[in-house]
Amino acid sequence: MADAPEVGELSPPNRTLMGPGPSDVHPRVLRAMSTPLVGHLDPSFVELMDEVQELLRYTFRTDNEWTIPVSGTGSAAMEAAIGNVVEPGDRMLVPTNGYFGGRMADMAQRAGGEVVAVDAPWGEPLDPEDVAAAFDAHGDIDVFGFVHAETSTGVLQPNVSELTDIAHDHDALAIADSVTSIGGVELRVDEWGIDVAYAGPQKCLSCPPGASPLTLNDAAMEKVLNRETDARSWYLDLSLLEGYWGEERAYHHTAPITNVYAIREALRLVAEEGIEERWDRHRRVAGALKAGFEAMGLEMNAADDYWLPSLNAVCVPEGVDDGEVIDYLLSAYDLEIASGLGDLEGDIWRIGCMGYSANPKNVSLVVSALADALSRQGVDVDAGAGIEATARALQE
Amino acid sequence: MADAPEVGELSPPNRTLMGPGPSDVHPRVLRAMSTPLVGHLDPSFVELMDEVQELLRYTFRTDNEWTIPVSGTGSAAMEAAIGNVVEPGDRMLVPTNGYFGGRMADMAQRAGGEVVAVDAPWGEPLDPEDVAAAFDAHGDIDVFGFVHAETSTGVLQPNVSELTDIAHDHDALAIADSVTSIGGVELRVDEWGIDVAYAGPQKCLSCPPGASPLTLNDAAMEKVLNRETDARSWYLDLSLLEGYWGEERAYHHTAPITNVYAIREALRLVAEEGIEERWDRHRRVAGALKAGFEAMGLEMNAADDYWLPSLNAVCVPEGVDDGEVIDYLLSAYDLEIASGLGDLEGDIWRIGCMGYSANPKNVSLVVSALADALSRQGVDVDAGAGIEATARALQE
Repeated sequence: MADAPEVGELSPPNRTLMGPGPSDVHPRVLRAMSTPLVGHLDPSFVELMDEVQELLRYTFRTDNEWTIPVSGTGSAAMEAAIGNVVEPGDRMLVPTNGYFGGRMADMAQRAGGEVVAVDAPWGEPLDPEDVAAAFDAHGDIDVFGFVHAETSTGVLQPNVSELTDIAHDHDALAIADSVTSIGGVELRVDEWGIDVAYAGPQKCLSCPPGASPLTLNDAAMEKVLNRETDARSWYLDLSLLEGYWGEERAYHHTAPITNVYAIREALRLVAEEGIEERWDRHRRVAGALKAGFEAMGLEMNAADDYWLPSLNAVCVPEGVDDGEVIDYLLSAYDLEIASGLGDLEGDIWRIGCMGYSANPKNVSLVVSALADALSRQGVDVDAGAGIEATARALQE
Repeated sequence: MADAPEVGELSPPNRTLMGPGPSDVHPRVLRAMSTPLVGHLDPSFVELMDEVQELLRYTFRTDNEWTIPVSGTGSAAMEAAIGNVVEPGDRMLVPTNGYFGGRMADMAQRAGGEVVAVDAPWGEPLDPEDVAAAFDAHGDIDVFGFVHAETSTGVLQPNVSELTDIAHDHDALAIADSVTSIGGVELRVDEWGIDVAYAGPQKCLSCPPGASPLTLNDAAMEKVLNRETDARSWYLDLSLLEGYWGEERAYHHTAPITNVYAIREALRLVAEEGIEERWDRHRRVAGALKAGFEAMGLEMNAADDYWLPSLNAVCVPEGVDDGEVIDYLLSAYDLEIASGLGDLEGDIWRIGCMGYSANPKNVSLVVSALADALSRQGVDVDAGAGIEATARALQE
């Protein structure tokens, strides 16, 4: 058996986080995390849970009673959604146009569901006609999942209401992955007819991961509460969590108290800024980033019509080693961007513009640092044009 | 749709946490939580993951390669253990002598397992003879679960090696719930032949909940990696987590970075104190608490032979309303203790003595405040004797 390990002071590097999340965390949220704890059944915590739920409803644009932070990172909220709504024998329609549709399918199968797919190429949104055709072709679909903001391709799904209308016309519930849209791009759960939406806190909410937004409307919760068999995860069973987050406030599991403190503060910042103003800021600041890239001659992976401000997928120019650029930015500038994921690995960089990270300083750094990295790779980029385009767009 | 909610500054009360967890968090751990984030695939974070694993091995007293913090609270680590080790059709033997054996059974059933029970009354440990008899009676048991430290009854399971020997003689794996023992009472995973142990960070490690210790030896991990069907939770699938926490460090889900920072700091404090010294401190400080209670004429729920220093179950005296006492301590002293759970609801108080909370100041406060609360309930307690016995024991 080993002796006590000698592990030094916690001293992580001082990164600027412009990858697919986590994003830079606001100092007020960091400070909230250093607040001493109360118990998870303390009357003061119960009050605070109400506040978090109210703030989450505001941010999701919903009146759903069933709106909670799940005790885990975004994938836990995702599995809480799918694992509770999908019952053994249910049929779920999932998209194939990105990495996270694949994860939906995996989770649905583990829940005992049967998976059918609606196709669209990576880098394209779903076409409502294809969704309708899939419903007609497969018959009897219980649940339809789609990704509102695909973190793997930088594609924003337009026409969400059209998709949910199709699902409802076929008596199916619609689940939206809003991990990379919540708090960053327009998302209107109630108005758009979304039955279930899950999200991550560490992207456009700029909150450390650990407690993740989830909302279900009455129709979805009715299905969950009337399951014939228990959900396959005890930890994520919403019928049990109902006892803790519902009126009873009965013990289920120990909530991640500090993460609830943190998301409360992150959501307070959303409320102070105003949700629509926040969406506007993301469009404006990420728009300046995109303008800079395009002025330098770089190409975006997603067409302008479904450009996702919070996650900019930039094509890697011919002959450039995407990993070398990433490593250089990290070592030379303490700047994090990410490589492609899945089918687009090696073809794109994923450059986030999320929450507290969506600010003029950060996007200006990304444009100039990327220009430097590319010129070191022998690419002839017009750095000046990029910097100028970004600055001009920021001032508009 | 509601307007932006007006939610005030985060200002929780200043509690002293002497319930069943969370316990008071050390200022160094709180400070670690306010550290700005790096990405979950950042080279510096990968290094930090190694350190956390090494510190966890030290604290569990194991050389198991498969030692990680699970991305959730203690129940997530519990379900990661049971949900991966138990395959559909497996038979699991669980104890009935406390609340958490019942949770084991629930999780095993959701994993597709069949559950059989070994009986012992609430408030008693398992008798190895009963365990052997249950193995013989039911035949073909694949997994045996037991609770090392029962948070619902304040009972410490002695003879752990005898229990694991019986399991191994019957070709079963032994899973230990060590949520309330890790870092507080003697726990020797390797020496005691425990195949899988899970724990919570918010008890004797005094770390905010959100990343929870789990360790599996090679035999257990071999079963997990050779399952015929996928684990039923994607989020907690150890064969996938192996890609992130193993050599590859490939993306699975976004780790709760801040919680990993926190557990690293909490475990550094364990290493600095020394694990055996820490067990001694818990015995000494909780022993003073127990001495005070007994000198006041209160009765412990567990016999001395299996008294659990980290969780003191104190019998509620005849005619006393347990809830009124709890509420009074909270409002008058900002002091948290808890009521009984399950079968013992109303019969006991659960008074923790865990981690950073296991200190002379806290136990002295508990003894004097409880004496005050009881005298207000009309109980004739000798407060002076209690305070004196505690002080004397602390000085030994």
